[in-house]
Amino acid sequence: MAEEYKTSSAENPLNVINVYDLEKEAANVIPAGGYGYISSGAADLYTIQENIKAFNHKLVAPRVLQDIAFPPDVSTTFWGDKLTSPIIMAPVAAHKLANTQGEAATAKGVSRYGTIFTISSFASETYEAQAAQANGQPQWFQLYQSKDDNVTRQMLDVAKKNGAKAIVLTADATVGGYREADKRNGFTFPVGLPIVPYQDGVDQTMDNVYKSAKQALSPRDVAFIKDYSGLPVFVKGVQTAEDTELAIAAGADGIWVSNHGGRQLDGGVASFDALQVVAKANRKRVPIVFDSGVRRGMHVFKALASGADLVAIGRPVIYGLALGGSQGVEAVFKELENELLIAMQLTGSHNIEEVKATNLIDNRFAD
Amino acid sequence: MAEEYKTSSAENPLNVINVYDLEKEAANVIPAGGYGYISSGAADLYTIQENIKAFNHKLVAPRVLQDIAFPPDVSTTFWGDKLTSPIIMAPVAAHKLANTQGEAATAKGVSRYGTIFTISSFASETYEAQAAQANGQPQWFQLYQSKDDNVTRQMLDVAKKNGAKAIVLTADATVGGYREADKRNGFTFPVGLPIVPYQDGVDQTMDNVYKSAKQALSPRDVAFIKDYSGLPVFVKGVQTAEDTELAIAAGADGIWVSNHGGRQLDGGVASFDALQVVAKANRKRVPIVFDSGVRRGMHVFKALASGADLVAIGRPVIYGLALGGSQGVEAVFKELENELLIAMQLTGSHNIEEVKATNLIDNRFAD
Amino acid sequence: MAEEYKTSSAENPLNVINVYDLEKEAANVIPAGGYGYISSGAADLYTIQENIKAFNHKLVAPRVLQDIAFPPDVSTTFWGDKLTSPIIMAPVAAHKLANTQGEAATAKGVSRYGTIFTISSFASETYEAQAAQANGQPQWFQLYQSKDDNVTRQMLDVAKKNGAKAIVLTADATVGGYREADKRNGFTFPVGLPIVPYQDGVDQTMDNVYKSAKQALSPRDVAFIKDYSGLPVFVKGVQTAEDTELAIAAGADGIWVSNHGGRQLDGGVASFDALQVVAKANRKRVPIVFDSGVRRGMHVFKALASGADLVAIGRPVIYGLALGGSQGVEAVFKELENELLIAMQLTGSHNIEEVKATNLIDNRFAD
Amino acid sequence: MAEEYKTSSAENPLNVINVYDLEKEAANVIPAGGYGYISSGAADLYTIQENIKAFNHKLVAPRVLQDIAFPPDVSTTFWGDKLTSPIIMAPVAAHKLANTQGEAATAKGVSRYGTIFTISSFASETYEAQAAQANGQPQWFQLYQSKDDNVTRQMLDVAKKNGAKAIVLTADATVGGYREADKRNGFTFPVGLPIVPYQDGVDQTMDNVYKSAKQALSPRDVAFIKDYSGLPVFVKGVQTAEDTELAIAAGADGIWVSNHGGRQLDGGVASFDALQVVAKANRKRVPIVFDSGVRRGMHVFKALASGADLVAIGRPVIYGLALGGSQGVEAVFKELENELLIAMQLTGSHNIEEVKATNLIDNRFAD
Repeated sequence: MAEEYKTSSAENPLNVINVYDLEKEAANVIPAGGYGYISSGAADLYTIQENIKAFNHKLVAPRVLQDIAFPPDVSTTFWGDKLTSPIIMAPVAAHKLANTQGEAATAKGVSRYGTIFTISSFASETYEAQAAQANGQPQWFQLYQSKDDNVTRQMLDVAKKNGAKAIVLTADATVGGYREADKRNGFTFPVGLPIVPYQDGVDQTMDNVYKSAKQALSPRDVAFIKDYSGLPVFVKGVQTAEDTELAIAAGADGIWVSNHGGRQLDGGVASFDALQVVAKANRKRVPIVFDSGVRRGMHVFKALASGADLVAIGRPVIYGLALGGSQGVEAVFKELENELLIAMQLTGSHNIEEVKATNLIDNRFAD
Repeated sequence: MAEEYKTSSAENPLNVINVYDLEKEAANVIPAGGYGYISSGAADLYTIQENIKAFNHKLVAPRVLQDIAFPPDVSTTFWGDKLTSPIIMAPVAAHKLANTQGEAATAKGVSRYGTIFTISSFASETYEAQAAQANGQPQWFQLYQSKDDNVTRQMLDVAKKNGAKAIVLTADATVGGYREADKRNGFTFPVGLPIVPYQDGVDQTMDNVYKSAKQALSPRDVAFIKDYSGLPVFVKGVQTAEDTELAIAAGADGIWVSNHGGRQLDGGVASFDALQVVAKANRKRVPIVFDSGVRRGMHVFKALASGADLVAIGRPVIYGLALGGSQGVEAVFKELENELLIAMQLTGSHNIEEVKATNLIDNRFAD
Repeated sequence: MAEEYKTSSAENPLNVINVYDLEKEAANVIPAGGYGYISSGAADLYTIQENIKAFNHKLVAPRVLQDIAFPPDVSTTFWGDKLTSPIIMAPVAAHKLANTQGEAATAKGVSRYGTIFTISSFASETYEAQAAQANGQPQWFQLYQSKDDNVTRQMLDVAKKNGAKAIVLTADATVGGYREADKRNGFTFPVGLPIVPYQDGVDQTMDNVYKSAKQALSPRDVAFIKDYSGLPVFVKGVQTAEDTELAIAAGADGIWVSNHGGRQLDGGVASFDALQVVAKANRKRVPIVFDSGVRRGMHVFKALASGADLVAIGRPVIYGLALGGSQGVEAVFKELENELLIAMQLTGSHNIEEVKATNLIDNRFAD
Repeated sequence: MAEEYKTSSAENPLNVINVYDLEKEAANVIPAGGYGYISSGAADLYTIQENIKAFNHKLVAPRVLQDIAFPPDVSTTFWGDKLTSPIIMAPVAAHKLANTQGEAATAKGVSRYGTIFTISSFASETYEAQAAQANGQPQWFQLYQSKDDNVTRQMLDVAKKNGAKAIVLTADATVGGYREADKRNGFTFPVGLPIVPYQDGVDQTMDNVYKSAKQALSPRDVAFIKDYSGLPVFVKGVQTAEDTELAIAAGADGIWVSNHGGRQLDGGVASFDALQVVAKANRKRVPIVFDSGVRRGMHVFKALASGADLVAIGRPVIYGLALGGSQGVEAVFKELENELLIAMQLTGSHNIEEVKATNLIDNRFAD
């Protein structure tokens, strides 16, 4: 029941040493059910752990005498939008699990930082309340498609009306992953999901929420969404060369490499390892957004050097939200930017284009 | 002594989060000697542990836009028998160690689930009592051959009379593995083994039980069993290309890849790694059953994608039997099926044939 | 504040079993802030840990019947200076954090041992007081260049006047690494840095100290320093083939392979792994000094066999200083020499040239 | 002092589950100094640990239908001597550290088992007392050569007179390894070393004992020993192809692959890995004895399958001696034989020649 769920309502400056600390601290202010839902992954947690460890499958080498005055230029431009850095906000369901202020505070912090905010279909706040915090920054809409095309059209209408600049079709969650923390906690959503007309969310398990959305997604859905919305479409959840081709052939304007934060298929490849495969298959035809496992500025660096154009973060932002509201959100982005700047300076990278051109050192099968 | 051995007699619904939990919980209801016998492996436990870890020597990649309505079709057909799924029951000795209801309850749960039950020569229940629970589902008979061919003929007669559809010749246990838990516990069977005329089992060590069966097995035995029974014969315990050829040349109708659950030869290859070798050598000439280390629906998936036609489980079912009787048995099968269904959906596999055609990602020498 | 910082003032003989012990014991005599500064590394500590583990990426094989009377000859000659062994003192900032006697005691211990002492720009003692302890042994000067060329000239004048035989340009610290221990401790220097005219150091963070030095270093700086000083110049912090070429092309007389003890770029290669790359690129054109991670005589051996001409140690010496003053410093060098002698004897190496000619066994991707 | 050293004087039957257990139990009956000397290894203990782990760098595969009646034939013949099994006794210094009965009890247990006993130069018992226990079984003499050839001749005279059938020249201990346990314990020998005329041993460190023997060994020494003694000579401590050639060229009749139980050179290759290299270089020209790290019958199996003709064990026997005297010694050999028999049966090996012809599965760079 919503009334029994007492989570944080923090709004304060947040001092961040690293985002791992935030994960531990957030466990003290988010109720166990919500925290389990946010933090955990599928089954044996192999893939969720590999998501982070895999960043050391590629190593960087420091470079010297590269004539860089600190700080290098971390800004980037994407589809005409100037961003503070290539670090953007991933779609995450139900921010009110972490902070009573919900997505409005997250959107505000993200805008203040100056990057893209992705609105989740399963947000616990209305679309309008999130859009109201855009403050000139771009917002994208992550779509869980309805079984009923007319309902999907309604959702796209709302997004367009509120200024969404792209649609992100989540294609890797046509059934819920086997998330044992939720089963042990008997977790159901204590908050509503006002954006999706087909599901109110309250007292529902994540499995039921997923089941109420369209499951049998196909290339036709990409074309349908693109045609109806007139917006560029990302296919999110791509991890293979085959699906890269499939998505591009279906008209996708971008590929979003993700394994849903290790929440869906356990025993699957780490997202960073999949990025290498997808980037090679893509041959720079469309932009790539990368997520899953990003906890360090160095992770952002390595993803950019492996073919990503933008790098999305999710859980760390939600922990920042829990601990500091919109200010906590902004602090998380600033922390990762700060770490990225140091990595850029010490690798002799004057700007993001040089980061993307960096050769990493293969360390795949090392101890 | 049988009268001192107080094990579970549970018969109740069983809620399963994962089968690892059951292993821990079963330790509370099965006496230490019986539990040690069931759960442990040979010597340093290297191979028993590798059996599970080895499933991550191959990784899966999620697939998207594959147009699958959940659930995909998990059913399969084997030699004309329609099965709920390719998950079948492996032969396991002396189920009464885990539950006073013994093999009758296991057979009942397996039939209710709708798959193959393999009756062990070293069952603690009569053949007839197990066959009585078949309920239209296929049953196979796992043979520990007698030193005396006439006794072997008697055993095959019983199996045929009671409807066995195949004989599974256990060829990897011509001596007991070096199982230290049994030595530390001073374990002897507290229950009788009514199927084998050459051994009553009571107060015997496993070593003695094995020694009373035929040790010097050869290809001639495969031919002998096949000729006399008129039934298809599996050779169980094959782990090499050489033995694949040997078994097929001897007339085997199927190969059963197994390292006896890591109970026999420590320092040997993981069963899942051996499956890759056997499947390649087999070149689809005969069907392959796989066991040893299966604890997840994803393990079933990976075995099927590596050449197995059926995947047998043993210990998890015995823990389910200890904790819930026939209902516990059924719950274990349903749990693994549920996990397998999620894996199928998220890898875009509409049915078991598509699972078997999946290309896995080599991760053999990774961290 | 300097007056609140109570560190060791030990001056006594030191019995060393191994230098790992010293690291633990030093934690008891150095205040937490200073100890954190000295001992810790960047971010997740991946690279600092790999620095040590990486020595087992190459293994040695014992050799027999090589006709060596113990001890073999561990001495070496570098640019005309006869050294007790190829083990030299790396530049380390602010020795007074560890012992009130500071760099004067370190320099004294190093001279008594009979090897090269490298004076740090960020020493907590005057140049003159360190030079006064040279006692006929060579001293080098590690330069953190000033943003103002005239100030750099002043510093080089002091070094020349006091007999420096080489300049070591630190090129890998144009911004401070992300050192979390310092952030958690709120560490600022409690002692002054009298050598650098552009920064007094007191109550400054390491970040601020680094920022006050020149950040945008380029090949022109190598040429400038070499021309003005007339001394041979090392470029310190080289880890790649590209930078090896760059440094040599800029006129460097030697390459100093280092990742700054894992204090700068986390997620980067281990220094010993980088040494393999640099040595190959160098093709013996210029001498190589190696540091980062050296804790054993065997590490010295492996570095020499991988292309290093000299091997520098830092932290272990500072722990020796904390625990025994100049005598502790000398004891650390003697301990590593002793371990090196055993390694030489058991690998059949009569002298340092034979150590350098040793073929190591690749173990890069082993467990 | 000898009078203060109170060790075990056990003489009783010993039940062995595995020899790792004995190592733990022996720590309770052997004084700390002696136990440290016996059990520990060099420096970081990397190589001593790798010695055991390395056996899983090669895996075995079970074989089926090989027509073997248990038990297979574990006996072997070496240079005309019929042995119960290829497991022999390695030279170990000062058995009286473990049991007041010393080498006499060990020799008795080894003879009763029926295999080769190697008498150490640094035995704590007279040569004659050990020879008296031979009981028809072969004995070999491990030589630490004297700096004085006449003294070496005296030692060889004693060995010949007492029936030694081979001389084992220890070539890998021309200086003591860096054994920290001994340094921490301040260990000196509490017992005398009556065989070596150049060193009485009492109150000496191992370093001093080694130093009193000849250090500058060369191929000439092999020829000298062989010529003078007229006995076949093993060179012990060979780990490389180069030294295999060197030893054979010098006239060695056998190669003894060993890294001295990980006591000498840390950071060196595991002995089992070196065996692969030596066996390849040897091309079956001379017999190979293998030691270092053998704790399981499976280890014996893998060593034989990798080119060894005999496999020597040391520490486990000394623990057996401490816990059960001569009966404990015999029990250790029987335990390893028992484990070896199971491995032979389950891999389809009828005899030792078939074990030696087994193809192992490369697992060098696995997790």
